[in-house]
Amino acid sequence: MAENKKFVEAITSMEEDFAQWYTDVVKKAELIDYASVKGCMVIKPAGYALWENIQHELDTKFKETGVENVYMPLFIPESLLQKEKDHVEGFAPEVAWVTHGGLEPLQERLCVRPTSETLFCDFYKDEVQSYRDLPMCYNQWCSVVRWEKTTRPFLRSREFLWQEGHTVHATAEDAENRTVQMLNVYADFCEQVLAIPVIKGRKTDKEKFAGAEATYTIEALMHDGKALQSGTSHNFGDGFAKAFGIQYTDKDNTLHYCHQTSWGMSTRIIGGIIMVHGDDSGLVIPPRIAPTQVMVIPIQQKKEGVLEKAQELRERLLKVGCKVKVDDSDKSPGFKFAEQEMRGVPIRIEIGPKDIEAGKCIVVRRDTREKIEVELSELEAKTREILDTIQKDMLERARKHVAAHTYQAANYDEFCDVINNKPGFVKAMWCGDQACEDKIKEDTTATSRCMPFEQEKISDHCVCCGKPATKMVYWGKAY
Amino acid sequence: MAENKKFVEAITSMEEDFAQWYTDVVKKAELIDYASVKGCMVIKPAGYALWENIQHELDTKFKETGVENVYMPLFIPESLLQKEKDHVEGFAPEVAWVTHGGLEPLQERLCVRPTSETLFCDFYKDEVQSYRDLPMCYNQWCSVVRWEKTTRPFLRSREFLWQEGHTVHATAEDAENRTVQMLNVYADFCEQVLAIPVIKGRKTDKEKFAGAEATYTIEALMHDGKALQSGTSHNFGDGFAKAFGIQYTDKDNTLHYCHQTSWGMSTRIIGGIIMVHGDDSGLVIPPRIAPTQVMVIPIQQKKEGVLEKAQELRERLLKVGCKVKVDDSDKSPGFKFAEQEMRGVPIRIEIGPKDIEAGKCIVVRRDTREKIEVELSELEAKTREILDTIQKDMLERARKHVAAHTYQAANYDEFCDVINNKPGFVKAMWCGDQACEDKIKEDTTATSRCMPFEQEKISDHCVCCGKPATKMVYWGKAY
Repeated sequence: MAENKKFVEAITSMEEDFAQWYTDVVKKAELIDYASVKGCMVIKPAGYALWENIQHELDTKFKETGVENVYMPLFIPESLLQKEKDHVEGFAPEVAWVTHGGLEPLQERLCVRPTSETLFCDFYKDEVQSYRDLPMCYNQWCSVVRWEKTTRPFLRSREFLWQEGHTVHATAEDAENRTVQMLNVYADFCEQVLAIPVIKGRKTDKEKFAGAEATYTIEALMHDGKALQSGTSHNFGDGFAKAFGIQYTDKDNTLHYCHQTSWGMSTRIIGGIIMVHGDDSGLVIPPRIAPTQVMVIPIQQKKEGVLEKAQELRERLLKVGCKVKVDDSDKSPGFKFAEQEMRGVPIRIEIGPKDIEAGKCIVVRRDTREKIEVELSELEAKTREILDTIQKDMLERARKHVAAHTYQAANYDEFCDVINNKPGFVKAMWCGDQACEDKIKEDTTATSRCMPFEQEKISDHCVCCGKPATKMVYWGKAY
Repeated sequence: MAENKKFVEAITSMEEDFAQWYTDVVKKAELIDYASVKGCMVIKPAGYALWENIQHELDTKFKETGVENVYMPLFIPESLLQKEKDHVEGFAPEVAWVTHGGLEPLQERLCVRPTSETLFCDFYKDEVQSYRDLPMCYNQWCSVVRWEKTTRPFLRSREFLWQEGHTVHATAEDAENRTVQMLNVYADFCEQVLAIPVIKGRKTDKEKFAGAEATYTIEALMHDGKALQSGTSHNFGDGFAKAFGIQYTDKDNTLHYCHQTSWGMSTRIIGGIIMVHGDDSGLVIPPRIAPTQVMVIPIQQKKEGVLEKAQELRERLLKVGCKVKVDDSDKSPGFKFAEQEMRGVPIRIEIGPKDIEAGKCIVVRRDTREKIEVELSELEAKTREILDTIQKDMLERARKHVAAHTYQAANYDEFCDVINNKPGFVKAMWCGDQACEDKIKEDTTATSRCMPFEQEKISDHCVCCGKPATKMVYWGKAY
């Protein structure tokens, strides 16, 4: 695409139309392109590099907890999908079916995996024999397909990339511990690496995963006040084990059903990065996940020594582990600034003849646009310090945003008023009856996001029906 | 699976039944398991760890040549697959078709990608505008599906993992250079990292990729004398560009069609590692690709200080970058030895009370079974030296095997005699006529593996028809 077409048109502002802003950013920051298959996306280099960094960070953490990677087939025979009743009911309406292999019809339809519980269970039923084999903690990185009606890049697409961990344990307690452990891995990753604060909690039965005994979730709040389910961890109890016959022989030679978990995070989280941190100039990527952390932009680059100096700064920063590039293309500096802002590069460094003479450079923060004069002798130390500061400040700002957009409601009038007029989370009590969730969804489109681990008492009674409350729930409109 | 079931039964010997030996190794070394979908496989941790190492090595090399990773959709609409005539003819008979999304039939069938030329072309036609955009060098890591009738783990399965690089260039020369460059990346990787020597050359028109102008290949020779096509790199010329309308505006403002390449390597290469290096005790993995390079096996591990010493050796080797583990399970040392041999771990270190007293340990090479007494004070240096030696020796042995199983033939009687009685490559001249390839295949089941870059003159005439020869060809029976 001709360079000047890319960035000269401004993107829609967030205030004007948040959905259009999102679509503009996704396209103009060159994260994705639409594909010829409706509802699928082409993930472009800038988008995929983000996913590679996410993979690397998560994969390292998984392996530290004893997880090993495997690869299961793409296809699930229809009869296998049907083995666990709740599971098939949840997924069958949205799977893609393969009916022909080559020129011939298949004897049995195969669905393209929407998730792989059934495949892992079919594998584990033979693989697990003795208590010595447990726990078995496998994960796979792959794509899955869900035939959604309405789609949006990263947030809801017919195919998306993710990881799905599947573990088998001897006891209910071990399975519960692993479920919570992985939720904490996700939560720490979001907060520490992506600078996205999350609410940890348990899903109500209405919102839990098809076939799970309990689903835990991390919920993040986007800039527009809508919630994004950002990662889930499921405890299956022994439900799948019973449906598939996954048993082990204990030390005392008795047979027991296994207890299982699964947990996943997907490319959806890239939508979260965009909607938590982005602004009207484009993406803002947290330093710890940025494919390029520093872009050196030479000013008057045709003047003698400027490009050489820019390259020298790059070399120096590379040596201390910064991900740094030089933009030595023949675009104007102003254009390069706009381009790097659109792409969300955390820091740009401007260096021109006058700076060189003064032994300085200008460091500009993407998140605040603050310009910082840095002595060249202090380049490495200052750059790393500023990257750390950006990372901390981004998390802090996002936390403040959540705090400022979290409300509470003690009765239904209050609840409806807040949920309809103040985008954000609403904390309110619930009786535990699904009828109240259904009514709230119908009246307001809001859903229960989670029953947070950190419970508070907002009132004594269910915000909807007025009966005695059992749980405090975070409610919100969600992606 | 109960431990003692895993290794007590010996595997079939290579001499007795090479195909059964292969299947036994693949299963007993726990690389794969069969899946409930016929012709698909479950890649288990030991197999997937190999693939992760292959990915890491190749991905690093790709990026050094300016390649960026992307992700294209899993599905190709039927009409898109049909855009390039030769391509669709080559692939349509072996694709899986999705006909239903959720509960509804699709308006247009989608095939599950057997390869992604058509998707990349559909993307490039909008993405490439100006000479400034070129070259564009993208790659993706994914799975592809080909509905094969007969399948074997890693070698030919209905779904396999691979990478596929797709590049767009301004000139025919640039495309040709990239095609050869990537073939060399594959060849160097096979030789230096996998210790697999390869023949580099060009495929005949009969054997080239559907839609390619030229296909280059690296061909390896397995232990049983059969060839394995181990990686291919295709020059498409401007054929796909014309079919899809991929054009760029040159500096002088004229429109030109682009020139393209694609290149791929798959999990098939794991079959190559097994069949080049394995022996009757199981896998033998080259140190540079081994997930575990050193297994420390304590002898009389219940005696005081033995386990502690084993862990100490592990810590010391970890510090110098070795991939090392301790097998402190309660199996017998003899069982552990057999297990590590089956898994192909390059080195085992035995350490017991007497060794500790003598300040020594025993290092055992997997490839030669040589036992080397090493002073504990020299542990790090000696271990690394032995790993390097194993890597070199494995390549050298494989090279000798190729040399000892490469024959030549000047006339058809000789050719048929050699190809039927002496498993290996046969170098022989060819007139360039496909009829001779067809006849040779019908008479002997052998195929032209490649026209090697390093040409020799074996005789003046085609080994089949006797007409004047134009090329020397490597012939062989192949996987």
